[in-house]
Amino acid sequence: LVQSVEIVCIGKELLIGKILNTNAQWLAKRLTSLGLNVRRITNVDDDIDEVSSALQEAMLRDQRFIITTEGLGPTFDDKTLEGLAEALECKLEINNEALKMVEEKYRKYVEEGRMEKVELTPPRVKMARLPQGAKPLFNLIGTAPGVLVEREGVSIVALPGVPSEMKVIFEESVLPLLKEAAGDVTFFEASLEATGVMESEVAPLIDEVMQDNPYVYVKSHPRGGEGNPRIEFHLSTTNQDSGVARNRVSKALVQLSELIQGKGGKIKPVKKED
Amino acid sequence: LVQSVEIVCIGKELLIGKILNTNAQWLAKRLTSLGLNVRRITNVDDDIDEVSSALQEAMLRDQRFIITTEGLGPTFDDKTLEGLAEALECKLEINNEALKMVEEKYRKYVEEGRMEKVELTPPRVKMARLPQGAKPLFNLIGTAPGVLVEREGVSIVALPGVPSEMKVIFEESVLPLLKEAAGDVTFFEASLEATGVMESEVAPLIDEVMQDNPYVYVKSHPRGGEGNPRIEFHLSTTNQDSGVARNRVSKALVQLSELIQGKGGKIKPVKKED
Repeated sequence: LVQSVEIVCIGKELLIGKILNTNAQWLAKRLTSLGLNVRRITNVDDDIDEVSSALQEAMLRDQRFIITTEGLGPTFDDKTLEGLAEALECKLEINNEALKMVEEKYRKYVEEGRMEKVELTPPRVKMARLPQGAKPLFNLIGTAPGVLVEREGVSIVALPGVPSEMKVIFEESVLPLLKEAAGDVTFFEASLEATGVMESEVAPLIDEVMQDNPYVYVKSHPRGGEGNPRIEFHLSTTNQDSGVARNRVSKALVQLSELIQGKGGKIKPVKKED
Repeated sequence: LVQSVEIVCIGKELLIGKILNTNAQWLAKRLTSLGLNVRRITNVDDDIDEVSSALQEAMLRDQRFIITTEGLGPTFDDKTLEGLAEALECKLEINNEALKMVEEKYRKYVEEGRMEKVELTPPRVKMARLPQGAKPLFNLIGTAPGVLVEREGVSIVALPGVPSEMKVIFEESVLPLLKEAAGDVTFFEASLEATGVMESEVAPLIDEVMQDNPYVYVKSHPRGGEGNPRIEFHLSTTNQDSGVARNRVSKALVQLSELIQGKGGKIKPVKKED
């Protein structure tokens, strides 16, 4: 019942380590909290063939959703839509709804005195050239619209790379689609930290907890190395009933805590990070 | 001549957005600075089949190097080596050199009074079960050794997920291999910021600079949206002669600055971030 999704982040700046991929983390957290299963995150270059093959591979893996970030702007290196068209084996064409959105933006900039007059130059029209059959998604903050294409049961959503623009389009136009597909599924998570035990000692304890709590995923994260053992445990589950999700995680948490304390470890809860 | 490399990051914590992928950024920056071309970064789940298919796909794309992070530890969810063995269609076997490294670590912990005696329990021995023909890479900080496997001209390196352990193994054991493969190639980059022009206005200027400077990659990053235009330009090149690399970027930088100022934009240099 859980719907799966892949994230494809486009941009050389990620591949040269110029920026941290905060967009991927934001999307992954948001999608997970909505009860979706993020199966893979891929970063590729601003290159039509790279974008196209990453998208085709994700489609072959049979995702319900594919969300891309970056590459919708007016410059030569904004190649997401060309890559998307190549992946779908269709053409780019001026989308009238998208062109209206772009034109409206420049009209607003003129009204605000930021430009003298609206000129729909080729780089500006480029932002309205979408794959055939695509739907533009209104961008409240920036100029380039987001893009939605549906093909053979897969919804492909292209979002801008500027975080504020990505987020606003996600919340306004993507969220309703995801909620409809995922239903009322809740992701519930909790963490605890243990000191005084080594990860190699708790390995069998985790196995025991996982066996007794088949719906809860337990993951240990060593912090500071085996020599100075501090281990964070992260427990999570997804369920249509939020009470069930919470109870399942709580039960596993109690069992794990007791087992760790039985090995002489000390336990403290971890504050949820944001 | 530029050697290419892919990074495969393993771990559900990335896919649920629990953590930012700082390891990928660190590796991407370091590899780029060494003159390598990072072609793709992939995040997959702690799942043998997912790890295996991500590695096989990277091998098919004909990379010189594939570097993985995370999943070498003692717990059930540390599945990198099982995935690697599946990808290479070989078995895992206890590697004596690796086992000695692991045993040495626990001996040290006993000496330091952190453990009573060295017990090579199954979760501990697990860290020394490597794919056939693999070579362990000494981990100065943590317990699990890194792993190097060479197959058909591809070097696959598996590094731990704890950043300090990943970095120390990279610098001590991976760097020499990369330097030998990449030669003395330099990556040179510079940034500048422009205000008072829109990204859609500078798009044709970038095209002009790219055409006149075929070896320099120019990328624009809009900050704050078209309505409040502030654009960062990032220029970079790779060359065996660091002087040539610097000159090429400088020449493109001067040309771009002049073109932007010609459009009424204002220019300031950007301090290199770290």
